[in-house]
Amino acid sequence: MARPVRVVVLGSGSWGTTVAGLAAQNTPTLLWSRNKEIADEINIDRRNHRYLGDRRLPETLRATADINEAAHEADVLVVGVPSYAVRAALEPLAHELRAWVPIVSLTKGLEPGTRLRPTQVISACLPGHPVGLLSGPNIASEIADGKAAASVIAMQDDSVGTALQPLFASKLFRVYRNTDVLGCELGGILKNIVAIAAGMAEGLRVGDNTRAMVLSRGLAEMTRLGEAMGAHARTFAGLTGMGDLIATCTSPASRNRRLGEALARGLSVDEAVAELGQVAEGVRTAPTVMELAREVGVEMPIAAEVAAVVGGHRSPADAYRGLRRVTPGDEEDVV
Amino acid sequence: MARPVRVVVLGSGSWGTTVAGLAAQNTPTLLWSRNKEIADEINIDRRNHRYLGDRRLPETLRATADINEAAHEADVLVVGVPSYAVRAALEPLAHELRAWVPIVSLTKGLEPGTRLRPTQVISACLPGHPVGLLSGPNIASEIADGKAAASVIAMQDDSVGTALQPLFASKLFRVYRNTDVLGCELGGILKNIVAIAAGMAEGLRVGDNTRAMVLSRGLAEMTRLGEAMGAHARTFAGLTGMGDLIATCTSPASRNRRLGEALARGLSVDEAVAELGQVAEGVRTAPTVMELAREVGVEMPIAAEVAAVVGGHRSPADAYRGLRRVTPGDEEDVV
Repeated sequence: MARPVRVVVLGSGSWGTTVAGLAAQNTPTLLWSRNKEIADEINIDRRNHRYLGDRRLPETLRATADINEAAHEADVLVVGVPSYAVRAALEPLAHELRAWVPIVSLTKGLEPGTRLRPTQVISACLPGHPVGLLSGPNIASEIADGKAAASVIAMQDDSVGTALQPLFASKLFRVYRNTDVLGCELGGILKNIVAIAAGMAEGLRVGDNTRAMVLSRGLAEMTRLGEAMGAHARTFAGLTGMGDLIATCTSPASRNRRLGEALARGLSVDEAVAELGQVAEGVRTAPTVMELAREVGVEMPIAAEVAAVVGGHRSPADAYRGLRRVTPGDEEDVV
Repeated sequence: MARPVRVVVLGSGSWGTTVAGLAAQNTPTLLWSRNKEIADEINIDRRNHRYLGDRRLPETLRATADINEAAHEADVLVVGVPSYAVRAALEPLAHELRAWVPIVSLTKGLEPGTRLRPTQVISACLPGHPVGLLSGPNIASEIADGKAAASVIAMQDDSVGTALQPLFASKLFRVYRNTDVLGCELGGILKNIVAIAAGMAEGLRVGDNTRAMVLSRGLAEMTRLGEAMGAHARTFAGLTGMGDLIATCTSPASRNRRLGEALARGLSVDEAVAELGQVAEGVRTAPTVMELAREVGVEMPIAAEVAAVVGGHRSPADAYRGLRRVTPGDEEDVV
């Protein structure tokens, strides 16, 4: 029998810990946390109280705060740290990680300053490794509670994707494959912006009709940007696009949606981020995506309004008035 | 100045009355109700209490129970009766309606027995008239409350669509155009089936991830059927497809969703329909759509499970287990 494939997950936030728990049910899995207390708590108590409350993690999941141990163990490396922390987390690994080890990103934001997607940052830090991602409508707390969900493993090389699939899949966690890495990654990044708009809609009580309009026009502008950048339109209609967008925009557990609600209640961005206590990637992503959109010449009216609100230049109520002002024509015209 | 275009709306349910109220703000509008008491209540009290509670209708809206009066008045005919009642409502008009009067359907279900779409039934009853529809994420009670929404007028001839647009549009009700009548109509019909599945998900508390999966896989199977029948895939990504689907699946006011929730609570279909007290088109549509899907050779696993549940052959819990059993592969494969 072949030696089992060892999975190493970097990052002990709610989603990194949950994915490590999924993998630990299939194969030997090690979770790296930069916080030794969290690593100890997982090893001793089988819990990550800060991020997953009282939920129990599998007995087989091991944790460490030693990045060298993590690097040596990995046959597959999963990156579950926020977008601003990816580079710092990976740099110590450059001389330790074995050649050809595939790297799976869980990160859904652009790197501040460079505007790079997580898979691009990973490729820059660790060249020569196949890099892809796991993404879909996956609210971490639900999956940690044992509820069913589906996700997509996106790798350019479908044979690598096929080999990775069974490491994360279970009866309750269905894993599909897609080779459009760019489209899958953009879906997860861009939906956070629309989720802030959906949260503002919730907070302003503009109604279910308007929220549905924001989601469907939001997906349309995500798809336009994706196509202009070389992704497939079909990907945005799948689990990593529409699926993730709907879960993020309708679940009360979504951080970006909650941030939008807090903004609609009149909090400043700083106050809303402080109230949330966790990273809401959309705040950083919105202005950066507007730069990308201008570069490729794509109109993104919803992202523009969200960028203006998180930049402090516009109130949520004015942003919604702005979204209504556009003159409707043919449905395929811009918004 | 040209003589104003007179709009006649057939059907005094919540949506027919609401659309009549929208048109009455732009142009002379007459609402036909088969129930004389409702017509009188609208003319005297400016209310339709049974369907819209205490909401006030515009002073300019007139109502009648006289179908001949309605037929003579119409420069534009709007059909707002349930799918099973379209033929009976239109047959008395065949010799009364002026030539070339465009007909706009609000109906979102297939005719029982014939499997015809509302626009097909209308064309059969009133040949020679341009027939299209108004559809989108439009929960009637929200629009009656004056909340913002967007909708689509679908007509094959874009010049007719352009002329109809200002009759229904307002600052708060944006009207787009689309010439893919088939795609727009199928979106409104098929979403009711997915809404029943989403309601069952809600009732079974399977979680936001699974609901998002059902919506995105549901839209994928709606799009597959539509393309096989000759509609454009893009239409399903717009307001009449994804937009209407999201509003219907996430709004607690949606009848089809509430029906799904009632089924998940263990009620029989008859009990659930009785509790609802209004028509939920998806109950009748699901088995008929499965016949269509088999004919054109398209797999629709979500519609199949819903048809089995409303047919009394499967419990909602078993239907959800069925949806999980499919082996995941490439994301673009069937479910």
